Amino acid sequence: MRLRHKPWAREKIEAHPQYIVPTPEDYQGNWKEVFNNNNPLYIEVGTGKGQFVTEMAKAHPDINFIGIELYESVIITALDRLIEAELPNVKLLNVDARNLSQYFTKGDVSRVYLNFSDPWPKTRHEKRRLTYQTFLKMYEDIMPDGGEIHFKTDNQGLFEFSLKSFSAYGMLLTFLSLDLHNSDFEGNIMTEYEEKFSAKGQRIYRVEAKYRS
Amino acid sequence: MRLRHKPWAREKIEAHPQYIVPTPEDYQGNWKEVFNNNNPLYIEVGTGKGQFVTEMAKAHPDINFIGIELYESVIITALDRLIEAELPNVKLLNVDARNLSQYFTKGDVSRVYLNFSDPWPKTRHEKRRLTYQTFLKMYEDIMPDGGEIHFKTDNQGLFEFSLKSFSAYGMLLTFLSLDLHNSDFEGNIMTEYEEKFSAKGQRIYRVEAKYRS
Ligand SMILES: C[S@@+](CC[C@H](N)C(=O)[O-])C[C@H]1O[C@@H](n2cnc3c(N)ncnc32)[C@H](O)[C@@H]1O
Ligand SMILES: C[S@@+](CC[C@H](N)C(=O)[O-])C[C@H]1O[C@@H](n2cnc3c(N)ncnc32)[C@H](O)[C@@H]1O
Repeated sequence: MRLRHKPWAREKIEAHPQYIVPTPEDYQGNWKEVFNNNNPLYIEVGTGKGQFVTEMAKAHPDINFIGIELYESVIITALDRLIEAELPNVKLLNVDARNLSQYFTKGDVSRVYLNFSDPWPKTRHEKRRLTYQTFLKMYEDIMPDGGEIHFKTDNQGLFEFSLKSFSAYGMLLTFLSLDLHNSDFEGNIMTEYEEKFSAKGQRIYRVEAKYRS
Repeated sequence: MRLRHKPWAREKIEAHPQYIVPTPEDYQGNWKEVFNNNNPLYIEVGTGKGQFVTEMAKAHPDINFIGIELYESVIITALDRLIEAELPNVKLLNVDARNLSQYFTKGDVSRVYLNFSDPWPKTRHEKRRLTYQTFLKMYEDIMPDGGEIHFKTDNQGLFEFSLKSFSAYGMLLTFLSLDLHNSDFEGNIMTEYEEKFSAKGQRIYRVEAKYRS
């Protein structure tokens, strides 16, 4: 993700607390307060410009969505989408996903989406991959037993690593496509990266991995 | 595999008991008698014309190999290779792999190779796929704890199915390549089908799956 310094970004973020939750640590164990309902909560880790969470929220009004994005300069584009879309069931967090356990507790999150996560191709950086064992533990700790991770990427190396990582963690692969756009999977919602890489002819990989309870 | 009726095949097979073991049920628990050594035994299920087992046996003289092939009309080509190669560490069985437990007992086999197994693409035939749960149980029952299956194919659907099947069985994926011929995997030995399909530009998939002990 190319980062441009946007000094006005913080101000814009703070001006929209109804979309970008300002103090997410206050809602740990209590996210229904934020959405005013008891619907399941699905999060996307590394939301980027927010197309996926926004379109998912439109398509699934009975699910609550939260997009998590570290960079102010990126999340403001997602914010613009939410302002435009006026949806009651999607919010953003401008936080570091490595600290998810500060914002969510066991059972808060019903599903985790990872889309086109940074590949960190060097082996010495593998701990930074969002499907590394420590991240799988963190996601497990905020979901109910039997929670699921839904992961898409065009990156072959990251996908191979992730399948091995899920298996090492003892997870069950409940869905797998090695060429999503030429499969019969229905209801796919494209992310920005997915549009870009599939237009270049890259295959898209997709997996659903379930924790064993 | 195209089958031609070859009435002389049975006769030829019976004329070479030193290569195609005539009564494999006699050696259950006792395969070292056949090879006259205590080396590990690796089997290939669905050997076809035998290029893989023959070349593997050449490359790994300290391992014993057995290729298992159901069809007489196919196994005779593998037999010709063995006659030509004169290797002490490779044999063939002209039997149905569904009956492996009649020929091998716990610990007899140290590794199972599956190469370009018949895909059986229809869901109603999934039980016939050599990576179906019942087959995984059968392979487990003839290997020591922590045994491994090494599987290659060009067939995307079969590979997706197999990864899910390994995960459902609780196996660990210790190696995974979604494009073997463009990976840094070393020492690959090509099968007949692998040569054919990779020449057509098909990707080759490869996985190593380990039983948890
Ligand atoms: C390659 S982009 C993909 C964006 C989007 N999911 C898509 O598919 O178009 C990865 C995104 O993850 C974000 N990200 C990476 N590590 C993060 C972390 N620790 N916490 C929050 N966001 C993170 C990056 O800032 C970037 O926007
Ligand atoms: C598609 S061919 C692949 C041959 C070879 N492994 C290769 O990669 O070139 C599959 C082979 O498996 C054999 N086969 C299928 N089911 C079998 C069974 N139940 N027992 C033994 N062999 C079987 C077939 O006869 C065929 O020769």
